[in-house]
Amino acid sequence: MSAVLDHLAANASRHVDELCAYLRFPSVSAQEKHAPDLRAAADWVASRLRGLGLDTTLHETAGHPIVVARTLPHDPAKPTFLVYGHYDVQPPEPFELWKTPPFEPRIEDGNVYARGSCDNKGQHLAHIHAVEAYVRTGTPLPCNLTFLIEGEEEVGSTHLYSFLPAHKDLLACDAVVISDNGIPSLTHPALTYALRGIVALEVRVDGPDRDLHSGLFGGSLENPAFALCSILAGLKDSKGRVSVPGFYDDVAKLSKYERAQMAKIPFNERRYAKFLGVPQVTGEAGFTTNERRTARPTMEINGLTSGYQGQGSKTIVPSWASAKLTFRLVPNQKPSRVLAAIRRRLKELCPPTVRLSITDGHGGEPYLVAPEGPLVQAGLKAMSGGFGREALLMREGGSIPIVSAFRKHLKADTLLLGMSLPDDNPHSPNEKFSLEAYTKGMRMAALLWPELSAAVRS
Amino acid sequence: MSAVLDHLAANASRHVDELCAYLRFPSVSAQEKHAPDLRAAADWVASRLRGLGLDTTLHETAGHPIVVARTLPHDPAKPTFLVYGHYDVQPPEPFELWKTPPFEPRIEDGNVYARGSCDNKGQHLAHIHAVEAYVRTGTPLPCNLTFLIEGEEEVGSTHLYSFLPAHKDLLACDAVVISDNGIPSLTHPALTYALRGIVALEVRVDGPDRDLHSGLFGGSLENPAFALCSILAGLKDSKGRVSVPGFYDDVAKLSKYERAQMAKIPFNERRYAKFLGVPQVTGEAGFTTNERRTARPTMEINGLTSGYQGQGSKTIVPSWASAKLTFRLVPNQKPSRVLAAIRRRLKELCPPTVRLSITDGHGGEPYLVAPEGPLVQAGLKAMSGGFGREALLMREGGSIPIVSAFRKHLKADTLLLGMSLPDDNPHSPNEKFSLEAYTKGMRMAALLWPELSAAVRS
Repeated sequence: MSAVLDHLAANASRHVDELCAYLRFPSVSAQEKHAPDLRAAADWVASRLRGLGLDTTLHETAGHPIVVARTLPHDPAKPTFLVYGHYDVQPPEPFELWKTPPFEPRIEDGNVYARGSCDNKGQHLAHIHAVEAYVRTGTPLPCNLTFLIEGEEEVGSTHLYSFLPAHKDLLACDAVVISDNGIPSLTHPALTYALRGIVALEVRVDGPDRDLHSGLFGGSLENPAFALCSILAGLKDSKGRVSVPGFYDDVAKLSKYERAQMAKIPFNERRYAKFLGVPQVTGEAGFTTNERRTARPTMEINGLTSGYQGQGSKTIVPSWASAKLTFRLVPNQKPSRVLAAIRRRLKELCPPTVRLSITDGHGGEPYLVAPEGPLVQAGLKAMSGGFGREALLMREGGSIPIVSAFRKHLKADTLLLGMSLPDDNPHSPNEKFSLEAYTKGMRMAALLWPELSAAVRS
Repeated sequence: MSAVLDHLAANASRHVDELCAYLRFPSVSAQEKHAPDLRAAADWVASRLRGLGLDTTLHETAGHPIVVARTLPHDPAKPTFLVYGHYDVQPPEPFELWKTPPFEPRIEDGNVYARGSCDNKGQHLAHIHAVEAYVRTGTPLPCNLTFLIEGEEEVGSTHLYSFLPAHKDLLACDAVVISDNGIPSLTHPALTYALRGIVALEVRVDGPDRDLHSGLFGGSLENPAFALCSILAGLKDSKGRVSVPGFYDDVAKLSKYERAQMAKIPFNERRYAKFLGVPQVTGEAGFTTNERRTARPTMEINGLTSGYQGQGSKTIVPSWASAKLTFRLVPNQKPSRVLAAIRRRLKELCPPTVRLSITDGHGGEPYLVAPEGPLVQAGLKAMSGGFGREALLMREGGSIPIVSAFRKHLKADTLLLGMSLPDDNPHSPNEKFSLEAYTKGMRMAALLWPELSAAVRS
């Protein structure tokens, strides 16, 4: 193992160069024009894995290709683990808020700044480098490994969901490892035992069949933008709770043990508000800030569109108004059941003077894995070793909906071993990835396979 | 007079050609890039007036130039009337809803389709053609005439408001005539005795200093788009009344006589709803549709902007959200007083977890001129003559804020002699102007000067 860790240390500068090369692909899955860039990113990571001797295939889908790479030879006597990641990234807009262009990586103060740096290219590339260290030093892996790198995570992994059941044998494994999440700090690494789920939808309110002069017609018909605002305002109450009948029915109560674990993570509310740039934090009454952002369901407006948005004013009653919404879910809420309740509530809130349409977006189940099980304990050991600090247990507020699909189709639990820091700005302008987290994450990834293999064998 | 009317009839086809030439200038005052197009439109109309022998000057302002043209010689023994119009137009967006491009006039079914056709190029050009008919037939005008054509009406006439008091002598007149409004139909021409005023403002809610990942942070801070929706939803109650304390304090009650006059105008509510393309009309409880859209104050959202509006979804808590708002006012509301009340209400509705900013836009006073006075009666005669039908009296829901400034600085009342029809789509895609209204409007304009001169002399 020391040869593996030495190899990682000796190649640190090349690891950064390779990450920068990977980050230069503007692989934005939400925007059709970037399809060729997604393919180029997939080709790049596939050829990187092929170069390490892995049996690597680009599987075509109706969307972006899925990369699968398996260590050779496959030894059925050893346990098998699957490492999942995604080469697609969030839209970089608004461009003007980036200090330097999102797809021209910049190294500054021990960080690499670029869209996709922490979410997720840097994190899964760390796993690839760890395997490289095994391969180049001739150190035998104690397990079989399968890399599964997709290109549609940021738009709901549509084609991976059909790919999984169709390739159960190819992807069969004892456990899944994902590094697509965060840790509280470099001195407080933490393993994530629960994730929030999500339902996304778009709500549109149609009024007059064209924009109308607000002087000639205003006052005699419903303003669709006002109707939309009223509907959306009706989705949350004054205590920060989602006003959708049945929304909380399936929410598993937080145990005292869980709340105590969460409270161990250092947290300063004033500093957090300052970090977000808000005058003060707020949220659902009766819960701490960390509970609100990781262990409680939410309703968020992601975008609003109506009427004239250009310079100056335009005195109209707009023809329509729309909103993009996401609801974060927690164990044991079901996306389909929640979505049905939301749709009912939206219809109930919409006046008969406008037409409502609802477009369902992607959905993902919330996730929970037993914190006291052998897999989690093995993960904690590798994380403690990699970061040189005792690893804690935590929940994560984000969604990695694919973990539920792994559980369903591969009958495998997933370990979430994050490397991202709280100020990495995933999904925001000036996304970054800490080079120290990158290095320590590689060490964790190298230490992981003996620990996990022993846990599965025991 | 018959020579004048004959000349108008004989030149009908050239009148249409000239209107089309005028409409080809994309003179959009809200958009800075169009400044050269505004100047070109001003030059065009100025040279048109100069060609009729009028003393014509392009007055420079810090914005778009103001065209002033006076008949020569100026006879102090005759009354003087001022004809006001504007060569600027509303933004044409959304372009994709136009059947043909907004600045390429199309003649179809007796209408000319183009941005600015009815609002306002067609209407003031009709007045210019009427004067041309006097000049070309050698018919002496019974009065002095001053044309005042500005280029900032659609953005609040900022520079005209300082131009007026500075040029009181140049613009001195016995009455002002404006054709920048509508009539119920070609068979029901009507003179407008009251206008609504307006206050415009932009409301912006700032939350986090960047867009945030809705999974990592959602639930622990106020969503600015949600805060904005809640604030806006709080501006109107369930009876369609504006929920701003003091908003209705200065509203003059509609008299029985006024309500009876308004009821004479043919109106079919089902057809009106169908024309607007809405499932049903709605508005302030206790008033008819025509009262709601002409004689009652309103609150309208003209545009909403927040977060991600592109293809697909982006799972963020947006950094900010904004709305463009206009409130229509009726006699005797004061824009400054109403604006102060709205600002107070917005601040009251905004939670302390976000930052609110309010940008004041343009404002305009409501207007009322005595329906039984000699000017209005003279206007009714000219209108009846021009359209060949008895003219009625009506209110208009739109704002022509400059009429209050004329009253203030020139001590002159304004006659509103519209030529636009209810389906002309001003401010909307596929704006049009009826060629029959154009022709009859020219006849009305020609008949107007003897009638008005007699009324002023009496």
